Amino acid sequence: MFLKNAWYVGCTPDEIDGKPLGRRICGEKVAFFRGPENKVAAVEDFCPHRGAALSLGFVQDGNLVCGYHGLAMGADGKAASMPMQRVAGFPANKTFPVVERYGFIWIWPGDPELADESLIPHLEWADNPDWAYGGGMYHLNCDYRLMIDNLMDLTHETYVHPESIGHHAIDKVPVNTVVQGDSIVTSRYMSNIVAPPFFQLQLRYNGMPADEPMDRWQISRFTPPANILIDVGVAFAGKGGFEAAREDKIGTIVVDFMTPETETSHWYFWGMARNWKPDDAEITEIIRQGQGKIFHQDLAVLEAQQKNLSEYPGRHLLMLNIDAGGVQSRRVLERLVKKENLADIETA
Amino acid sequence: MFLKNAWYVGCTPDEIDGKPLGRRICGEKVAFFRGPENKVAAVEDFCPHRGAALSLGFVQDGNLVCGYHGLAMGADGKAASMPMQRVAGFPANKTFPVVERYGFIWIWPGDPELADESLIPHLEWADNPDWAYGGGMYHLNCDYRLMIDNLMDLTHETYVHPESIGHHAIDKVPVNTVVQGDSIVTSRYMSNIVAPPFFQLQLRYNGMPADEPMDRWQISRFTPPANILIDVGVAFAGKGGFEAAREDKIGTIVVDFMTPETETSHWYFWGMARNWKPDDAEITEIIRQGQGKIFHQDLAVLEAQQKNLSEYPGRHLLMLNIDAGGVQSRRVLERLVKKENLADIETA
Amino acid sequence: MFLKNAWYVGCTPDEIDGKPLGRRICGEKVAFFRGPENKVAAVEDFCPHRGAALSLGFVQDGNLVCGYHGLAMGADGKAASMPMQRVAGFPANKTFPVVERYGFIWIWPGDPELADESLIPHLEWADNPDWAYGGGMYHLNCDYRLMIDNLMDLTHETYVHPESIGHHAIDKVPVNTVVQGDSIVTSRYMSNIVAPPFFQLQLRYNGMPADEPMDRWQISRFTPPANILIDVGVAFAGKGGFEAAREDKIGTIVVDFMTPETETSHWYFWGMARNWKPDDAEITEIIRQGQGKIFHQDLAVLEAQQKNLSEYPGRHLLMLNIDAGGVQSRRVLERLVKKENLADIETA
Repeated sequence: MFLKNAWYVGCTPDEIDGKPLGRRICGEKVAFFRGPENKVAAVEDFCPHRGAALSLGFVQDGNLVCGYHGLAMGADGKAASMPMQRVAGFPANKTFPVVERYGFIWIWPGDPELADESLIPHLEWADNPDWAYGGGMYHLNCDYRLMIDNLMDLTHETYVHPESIGHHAIDKVPVNTVVQGDSIVTSRYMSNIVAPPFFQLQLRYNGMPADEPMDRWQISRFTPPANILIDVGVAFAGKGGFEAAREDKIGTIVVDFMTPETETSHWYFWGMARNWKPDDAEITEIIRQGQGKIFHQDLAVLEAQQKNLSEYPGRHLLMLNIDAGGVQSRRVLERLVKKENLADIETA
Repeated sequence: MFLKNAWYVGCTPDEIDGKPLGRRICGEKVAFFRGPENKVAAVEDFCPHRGAALSLGFVQDGNLVCGYHGLAMGADGKAASMPMQRVAGFPANKTFPVVERYGFIWIWPGDPELADESLIPHLEWADNPDWAYGGGMYHLNCDYRLMIDNLMDLTHETYVHPESIGHHAIDKVPVNTVVQGDSIVTSRYMSNIVAPPFFQLQLRYNGMPADEPMDRWQISRFTPPANILIDVGVAFAGKGGFEAAREDKIGTIVVDFMTPETETSHWYFWGMARNWKPDDAEITEIIRQGQGKIFHQDLAVLEAQQKNLSEYPGRHLLMLNIDAGGVQSRRVLERLVKKENLADIETA
Repeated sequence: MFLKNAWYVGCTPDEIDGKPLGRRICGEKVAFFRGPENKVAAVEDFCPHRGAALSLGFVQDGNLVCGYHGLAMGADGKAASMPMQRVAGFPANKTFPVVERYGFIWIWPGDPELADESLIPHLEWADNPDWAYGGGMYHLNCDYRLMIDNLMDLTHETYVHPESIGHHAIDKVPVNTVVQGDSIVTSRYMSNIVAPPFFQLQLRYNGMPADEPMDRWQISRFTPPANILIDVGVAFAGKGGFEAAREDKIGTIVVDFMTPETETSHWYFWGMARNWKPDDAEITEIIRQGQGKIFHQDLAVLEAQQKNLSEYPGRHLLMLNIDAGGVQSRRVLERLVKKENLADIETA
């Protein structure tokens, strides 16, 4: 269950650096490559000649050349050339709207007519020199909605990440979930606590004392199709928390873009953006590696959860207050997918 | 095809030492753990909150705490607590009767109402200081009944284990199979032979000459659901064989408990009990390792047999005299499973 | 889709040297072994006793002894003996006609009545001391017909093997495909080119200059069920090419025998025969290793192609002039398989 008429992160620029990339996105086999003028392109990963995987080939003069018999596929899905062949009558490949923006390659796996670049989420920090960003990608054998649940309920940090970002205060402070149209915001504010180790590390790197009493915030914001940005951070106690002056707090934006591969697997693009010491690449890399280790802990939990849910499909799950963020996000998706399906029927 | 209303070995105490264990038993996903007062407990491996695998969590104060959001599952299958939640209305998990006895954790995967501890087989040697025991566990991708066949017809030792316990005398001496109610006993007695290497090793460790002519016995006893104890040993020729005086023989009990995982896979708990030099832990370990190597040889044979049988399900198999032990054991199981199914229909 | 009444290469003699071999051929599970007088034999890989895989056993006195309980299976598919058993009434195993010839074990997976040894292709070079042969075998997870396509259209050399046998002249010279009854011949002749590296290596090993302008030929000949022999080589430009005098050219026969395992996997026996310096075993081995590396490059391409075709079964593929060899070969196979099926219906 996923939206097709939506922008997803398909890959990152480094994945198509000098070579094509084959990846299944929302059930579609896609070959990403750099077309004319180095502009990103995405076509079905199927050579119209004999069905070879185009992504095993190479890029030449803006075309994706099939590595089997040399058919050159254009970014427009049409065969541009093939040795000794007239390609004018060759059937065209499906193409997918793609846009390179904010350090990601965004793809629209649904109806190309509906692809509107202005719908790509605006990432303030991405084009701003006051900010630094580091991130990575994991493949998970589970429905992307289990990751939405995970990120919209950070209670799990106490159990899945006890030694880094977990804290028993999380368990004692209720969350607040607000529906804002298609966007869901879940927040939790903790007062007068000891900063967990991963925040202490950041405080020290920013030249701030790490053992003072702190106020902590977690503000997860879901927007369709599967984007979650989370404001997290700590401020010296009583200084205003999230709203504190810059010198009294340290915060980051946790960036999460989930892209369905199949109904029960997805690509998970994760990262962190920060607006302190943005020019220090060493700090960026240390945070990136730290986040990578922490976020990797979720994989085993979510993949085992998927196995359980697949085995007991009819089983009733609880919807507690802490689950409200995920539950509400799923409701938004269900509503939008229903609308998408109705639109398909009307145009058919 | 397996009995559900029966005691099976679910695991051994070392497998739940300080941590829970997830294992599929007779199709059921089970989480084993030590509950209150360190008493063993077993509940469905499914968190009633969001379906996470409870066995990925940890044990605290006799509860199994879910490693995702901290729901504490009690040994009684009821949620004992969860941070900031009232758990009174949470749906209960299925629980499984479990008993720790004789160095094993026994589980009853069927109707808990019928679980009667007195039905756990009595293992004389297990609580007796005159005896020593060593063993291990293998997972096999085959129907547990193929292992019953294997152990109820030791003719295979000549072919599968020629260098350790096999002997061409086995091929020359017929077996005798007796049905005793639900119990099947298959025996073979060989006279005046050279002891096979694994017995010579034991003779030497017990300070006895290893190259004398010996009489050898193999007495396999099957009891439902899948327990096979085998008396094996050698005595100096003409001294009475199995009945010989203690100083004239060396014998062990081969212990085999098979626990179905699915219809075509099972957990195989194997070991050996002996009543000579029971205090010598080094001998116990040497025998355990030797048995482990020998019994591992059966895996490839049985798994390939399972593949053949799955591919040719209608194919007629022979039932020779040597197969009588396995064939009769299967008949007992078929009768008892039929009875179990009828009882299910009557109560339904 | 494959012929069953046909000779396929089942294995090579080294694969049954002192031990049996289990291999699935055209869907049939076969145990190959050396029977009486060391003559090759092939029986169903299923012990009539309890379904064990006979190929896990051993050969004794021309019988294949089951490694489970010692049933000795004869080359005629009848149980020859079993310890303490009368085997006369045992059901017989299916047997498969097999012939050892030209360094291969040929098997006829269909109706044994129709197996005619004279239908085994004549391999002139195989029994001739003027020729040397080296080869190997790969397993591919794709329909064997994708390999037929591959070998009947060597255009792919330019893309899959650019650093060894590929050459952009291949792209510029059209192929010619001729149907000769059930045999298909596709040829391409290139003039006045630089020899590709793998041919330069051969020229040097044969003591010939490697940097002269050369004429090159590729003549692929398909015969059912899945045999392709390819004359390849280079001659000094203007000396007659394939027809040039021996001192002016260097040529080899590329040998390809494909044997279906299932509908979407096959065993690929590949090799090269040459009639220059046939006694130099070192050259044979160098060429064998070189060919092995080059031919291994096709695996990833063909297996990805199979995945695409399995995912889009209804998708229309192009049939260009370069594809004529494969297309015509497939037509021969379709015609013969249809004929085989009709014959089955008539006899049924």
